Amino acid sequence: MAALAPAVAAIRVAVRRALVGLPTAGPVLVACSGGADSLALAAATAFVAPRLGRPAGLVTVDHGLQAGSAERAAAVARWAEETGFAPVESVRVYVAGRPGGPEGAAREARYQALAEAARRYGASALLTGHTRDDQAETVLLALARGSGPRGLAGMPPRRDLSGVPLLRPFLDVSREQTRRACAVLGFTPWEDPHNVDPSYARARVRADVLPALVAALGPAVLDNLARTARLVAADTTALDDLAAAALAEARVPTDGRAAGERPVSGGLVVTVLAGLAPALRTRVLHAWARELGAPAAALSHRHVAALDALVTDWRGQGAVYLPGALRVTRHDGLLVPV
Amino acid sequence: MAALAPAVAAIRVAVRRALVGLPTAGPVLVACSGGADSLALAAATAFVAPRLGRPAGLVTVDHGLQAGSAERAAAVARWAEETGFAPVESVRVYVAGRPGGPEGAAREARYQALAEAARRYGASALLTGHTRDDQAETVLLALARGSGPRGLAGMPPRRDLSGVPLLRPFLDVSREQTRRACAVLGFTPWEDPHNVDPSYARARVRADVLPALVAALGPAVLDNLARTARLVAADTTALDDLAAAALAEARVPTDGRAAGERPVSGGLVVTVLAGLAPALRTRVLHAWARELGAPAAALSHRHVAALDALVTDWRGQGAVYLPGALRVTRHDGLLVPV
Repeated sequence: MAALAPAVAAIRVAVRRALVGLPTAGPVLVACSGGADSLALAAATAFVAPRLGRPAGLVTVDHGLQAGSAERAAAVARWAEETGFAPVESVRVYVAGRPGGPEGAAREARYQALAEAARRYGASALLTGHTRDDQAETVLLALARGSGPRGLAGMPPRRDLSGVPLLRPFLDVSREQTRRACAVLGFTPWEDPHNVDPSYARARVRADVLPALVAALGPAVLDNLARTARLVAADTTALDDLAAAALAEARVPTDGRAAGERPVSGGLVVTVLAGLAPALRTRVLHAWARELGAPAAALSHRHVAALDALVTDWRGQGAVYLPGALRVTRHDGLLVPV
Repeated sequence: MAALAPAVAAIRVAVRRALVGLPTAGPVLVACSGGADSLALAAATAFVAPRLGRPAGLVTVDHGLQAGSAERAAAVARWAEETGFAPVESVRVYVAGRPGGPEGAAREARYQALAEAARRYGASALLTGHTRDDQAETVLLALARGSGPRGLAGMPPRRDLSGVPLLRPFLDVSREQTRRACAVLGFTPWEDPHNVDPSYARARVRADVLPALVAALGPAVLDNLARTARLVAADTTALDDLAAAALAEARVPTDGRAAGERPVSGGLVVTVLAGLAPALRTRVLHAWARELGAPAAALSHRHVAALDALVTDWRGQGAVYLPGALRVTRHDGLLVPV
């Protein structure tokens, strides 16, 4: 009996770890573009899921952005049916006219379609094939864009996508391993031209920046980036939880209402805010501004810094303008929306 | 009257911001290698410090690692005396035989000599010329080495160096600006061959990685790296402070002693540790292991993870071995050194 190729063993172990202990019944759905990463994910899931007593379905998304994309989606769906996936679905999404850059618009359309499919089939989880290399690219892009600790935390291995658990079993698996697994299993993965299209920031990071980092500092760089992302994610989670508690403490006590029943439009007590560490206070102010209705995409660190100045650098300044036609002022020791 | 060149204005503003409000008297000491960054720092300090009523001294360090280094140090000291710095000192340090890599050994010897000089002259502050570009390199190196949030926070704009405030006024000034200022002022800075020596990791990052990042993602990358460093530093500070408080809470109450008087060799209460966010708990365990005597350099995240497993994954396992010939075990709901 031939020994199992290490790359195939690695992808199966990773999927198994992700699937054991899923709380609900229902099929697991693999998101598969036909590229090496998601093809390896599909192959591993087709092997592992039935052995855990769980049906496996597959969804492929046609973004309609490239010639032949419909045929490619159809080929992936055909392969999935032959492999025994059920349900199998090919979804056409429309990217044009969405806000944001081309990458962001395509991603948003894709996740929306995947979430809808997952809900339609009562899926217990949705699986995507993001690898350690994708994670390294994400972390570098976040760092270079100044997205702060939240961006640096990278992609979480599991998160909620409109009520469905989104799992990324391959965040510790290298892209090279998924390619090797595909080769061993006899698959010919699709090569997404966007991955090498220099008009995409991620493609430029992949083609030029990560290789320069690896050449300068050695191959451990990719694991180290992933490790840093995990540590920053843990820090961010802890501070977000503490900030939520601090926001509750900073709210103006209102007459006769129990804690938790306070109107979100109430004010915040400046002395409570002033006693917080800066990292907590800026989180509290950001969360409060969101609660008041400021749209996340438009709310920048400059807005939060202006709110913070009402607390820590009070010189009688006027109201702070926030996106969403909001104004916040300091009055009688309170920050209040006006 | 000729307008002040923007680069010269920028370096003077940066130094002024750093020097106003220094709490103690005594000269400010500039650490100057003769390179563009520290020469610009020295020039700006020579202009700003007297106007703030403060004497300015200068220390140049000869690492003895390159031919002609003694002559270079003598030339810098001569220039400093002519410029009106007092005191002026050239210090020879010995790097060979120190532990760690060549970069680390040279850095350690340099800071030790600078701290000694600062104490000798009762300096109110020691200034170094690290720029925004140095900060970007530091952050990338930390990221690539997996040093976690602490490394990512980069160099702080001010820290304590053996009792003397170490200030870095140029962390928001670009290297290019210091070069331009030197050109305007008619200086010919020394070019440190180590800065382009590919046997140094930092030189490789400077020569290859940062240019690739800038080419891929645009020149805002450097400011963004610095901004991320500031945000991560704020998060790290907040969590470190919270962890110090959590460590105090987790200590075993000992009979009759007031809080704060407990022996550091006492145990930690597992239920208190278990209630902490992972990011806080790992910080508490790390700080406690240091307190027990584990040397920082040898204490890795694996040791902390093993301690953490005594709390969160207790299966009756044996003692955890820590560097410094220490052992910690779980006994009666406590973590205790044995």
